[in-house]
Amino acid sequence: MKEFYDLDDFSKREIGELLQIANSLESSPEVNALNGKVLALLLLNPSLRTLTSFQASMTRLGGGTFVISPEMSIHGLETRSGIVMDGSAAEHIREAVPVISSYADAIGIRALASRENLQADLSDTVFNELRELCDVPMINLESAIRHPCQALADWKTLDDLKLSQSEGKLVFSWVYHPEALPLAVPADTIYMAAKRGMEVTVLRPDESALPEPIINRAKRAASEDGGLVKETNIRDDAMANACVLYAGSWASTLEYGNKLADRKARSNYENWCVDESWFKSAQKSCAFMHSLPVRRGVEVEDEILDGSRSAVVRQAKNRMYVQMAVLKYLLAR
Amino acid sequence: MKEFYDLDDFSKREIGELLQIANSLESSPEVNALNGKVLALLLLNPSLRTLTSFQASMTRLGGGTFVISPEMSIHGLETRSGIVMDGSAAEHIREAVPVISSYADAIGIRALASRENLQADLSDTVFNELRELCDVPMINLESAIRHPCQALADWKTLDDLKLSQSEGKLVFSWVYHPEALPLAVPADTIYMAAKRGMEVTVLRPDESALPEPIINRAKRAASEDGGLVKETNIRDDAMANACVLYAGSWASTLEYGNKLADRKARSNYENWCVDESWFKSAQKSCAFMHSLPVRRGVEVEDEILDGSRSAVVRQAKNRMYVQMAVLKYLLAR
Amino acid sequence: MKEFYDLDDFSKREIGELLQIANSLESSPEVNALNGKVLALLLLNPSLRTLTSFQASMTRLGGGTFVISPEMSIHGLETRSGIVMDGSAAEHIREAVPVISSYADAIGIRALASRENLQADLSDTVFNELRELCDVPMINLESAIRHPCQALADWKTLDDLKLSQSEGKLVFSWVYHPEALPLAVPADTIYMAAKRGMEVTVLRPDESALPEPIINRAKRAASEDGGLVKETNIRDDAMANACVLYAGSWASTLEYGNKLADRKARSNYENWCVDESWFKSAQKSCAFMHSLPVRRGVEVEDEILDGSRSAVVRQAKNRMYVQMAVLKYLLAR
Repeated sequence: MKEFYDLDDFSKREIGELLQIANSLESSPEVNALNGKVLALLLLNPSLRTLTSFQASMTRLGGGTFVISPEMSIHGLETRSGIVMDGSAAEHIREAVPVISSYADAIGIRALASRENLQADLSDTVFNELRELCDVPMINLESAIRHPCQALADWKTLDDLKLSQSEGKLVFSWVYHPEALPLAVPADTIYMAAKRGMEVTVLRPDESALPEPIINRAKRAASEDGGLVKETNIRDDAMANACVLYAGSWASTLEYGNKLADRKARSNYENWCVDESWFKSAQKSCAFMHSLPVRRGVEVEDEILDGSRSAVVRQAKNRMYVQMAVLKYLLAR
Repeated sequence: MKEFYDLDDFSKREIGELLQIANSLESSPEVNALNGKVLALLLLNPSLRTLTSFQASMTRLGGGTFVISPEMSIHGLETRSGIVMDGSAAEHIREAVPVISSYADAIGIRALASRENLQADLSDTVFNELRELCDVPMINLESAIRHPCQALADWKTLDDLKLSQSEGKLVFSWVYHPEALPLAVPADTIYMAAKRGMEVTVLRPDESALPEPIINRAKRAASEDGGLVKETNIRDDAMANACVLYAGSWASTLEYGNKLADRKARSNYENWCVDESWFKSAQKSCAFMHSLPVRRGVEVEDEILDGSRSAVVRQAKNRMYVQMAVLKYLLAR
Repeated sequence: MKEFYDLDDFSKREIGELLQIANSLESSPEVNALNGKVLALLLLNPSLRTLTSFQASMTRLGGGTFVISPEMSIHGLETRSGIVMDGSAAEHIREAVPVISSYADAIGIRALASRENLQADLSDTVFNELRELCDVPMINLESAIRHPCQALADWKTLDDLKLSQSEGKLVFSWVYHPEALPLAVPADTIYMAAKRGMEVTVLRPDESALPEPIINRAKRAASEDGGLVKETNIRDDAMANACVLYAGSWASTLEYGNKLADRKARSNYENWCVDESWFKSAQKSCAFMHSLPVRRGVEVEDEILDGSRSAVVRQAKNRMYVQMAVLKYLLAR
């Protein structure tokens, strides 16, 4: 069964082909490509961009979607195996997922990290249980540790910015955020940039050092595809000659799952908020990227988001085009 | 005005024609059959399968849906006649239903039993008030006492299981459930199986004996169409030579509308949970059916749901095909 | 950029053309006119008719919609400029609106009056901030002071009632309602009727006199297009020879933003509930109109809503046809 679970399942050549379809769909709509086809969207966590960009994607190709989301009165879906369901959950995923996928030609699933157990999140345990229950092509709409739609959209954005595949330095920087956020975006962004052949620097406080499996995965991609990956806590070193600053936030990996300790660790870095001064040693045209949603005045100042460096709306728009390409790849005859 | 309110409004020949359309749509999609057509879904109770299967059905035929559901901020719809609306309800069904149906080519309505007054539920009082307000073809998405979409899907599933129309014994068994559930599924399942010409045995504790009008309706169908209907509380008698066990739960009919007495009545039968031992006197290939959602370990054990007897996902999938047939019957030129 | 923000942006001739498209679409569907086109619906306030009529409109033209609404877990959208987002709002409209509109071919926005500051509501301050962020054609789904889709639908309803463009007396009457409602419907209804060339009388208690800018705007339209606008608190004078009674309710304009004082002012007029006696000096065929939702027995008696005078369902249905016309005008090649 074809699926779109992990960018790592695709060679650089295959990614190039998907991006070519995306570019083609951007310039030449194909309003009947998926006539009568149905995409199910199973969102175990709320979503704005993912939901609406997939709905728009299917409409633009002539098909349609239906949504199962936490806002619906589905009384909670039971996910545990071998359980006696005498509580409030009225339905088990072992019925719900096969039924939902029986109505659809493809299913998209979002199930974010629970951020309780680092090992479970790194192994994508919950998501893989859901994934095994699907009888139709599955698209990962963000799991505990993967966000391939965002990564593919960002690859296209880097192309749109006219950055060549094999040159350029991308800094992925931790920024302050009032909440402990998942690792999927940082993990997949540095993997994508390394695979693209860029020089990737992760800039973060030591308390937020990325787990070894995440760094090693990106380094493997770099070694195969010409990129480079390193980590630092020194901003000026990181930003020297950078052509892209990609900002994001994630839970402390030293205090993973411990909310109070995590908050304390983060509170020392409230001044990690991107402003124009961050760019002084970067390339003049250095772009700013972020996967959204973004906290203005907390993660990054208005001057950056409203200025010419910002590529954030372009990134979000590219979600639609690359998803249309993935849908066409999975569903078109 | 054509409608799909009650399977009893259709002859066995007409049902055969609907199933033929369903089978044809399953093997040969018709992605332009209902181009530009709109189905309104008015759900006064939450729904997972009904909502998503109808959304998928319309997309597959080239049309679309819109949904009015309790999750939306519609502030409650007033249903009582002659009321002074100075409370919280902002809208009366006497405006809402005609307006909603004016936007649509057909309207589907779900309004489950209130389970307060048995006579009112048996007469489908609330649903019939809504039904009279519709100016376009209406589809019953489950009323107090009817669930014709489920019954038609189950008929197709029995066909898919290669059970001949006029032979075979179907046992409809009450099983334990923590809540008092409506009578629509048991009422329409035994009616459907009797009309199909099967030998139907209702297996239940005496406290859950089905009301006479429900049994009599099934017996009438049986007498016209070759089936047979009986009730018992003895499992071994019921299951002897059965080719289908259909499990469900419903409120005690002796204590209808009395939550405490109902819970007490049910609590004596917590061991009515289907496992492999139920099948010892049945036919070897005896299938297991359930309309879902199902409580694992409470209504039925995992071994049955995960084993080869289970037809529950097929039943749910058939909802889509028979509904497409009904939609085509009601809406295609 | 074409948009549909205010009926005042369109000449009487252009309105005539839109209504001609609406009438044509009513009699001759065009199920492929907007194939593959996407309408985004950003609803900052709940909605029944607006949401469902636009969903139906796009389906009927071959396209589709997606919805962002307060029922979704979007954690509130921050609307204030220059804010440090360290509270609960996770997303700013300065990202959300450009992103949403990047997925769509057109965007519809609903943002009702906050009813705190009359001057801000009359200037449509909040809505104009949202409007400036749209990169695609924008449709006003009701702002603080405009409701052009309702007004255009009502124009069509007046046509459907065979009322000639330049004759006839329309009474817009305040009626009692338990809540303080916005000014958009009264403001746009009297503007529309005056522009249509009718003699418009606003009937209301003095505490609910419409603000001068609203009256003056309608008078300007009247002077240009042959109509007449006056206000009175005397029912018999107002209703003499009327051919349409349009009822609605709105917050006291003397006590705007003061909930307690507003409630006190309104409480003196609980008997302003339309019944047959209101029509004694009107034309025999005088029609009753209301934009819905309507409180039965509070704003108007059942005898009127259920009787032959009522045009309220027709009004609601016409929302769909005029919106299809607006969509075709904005989006068709």
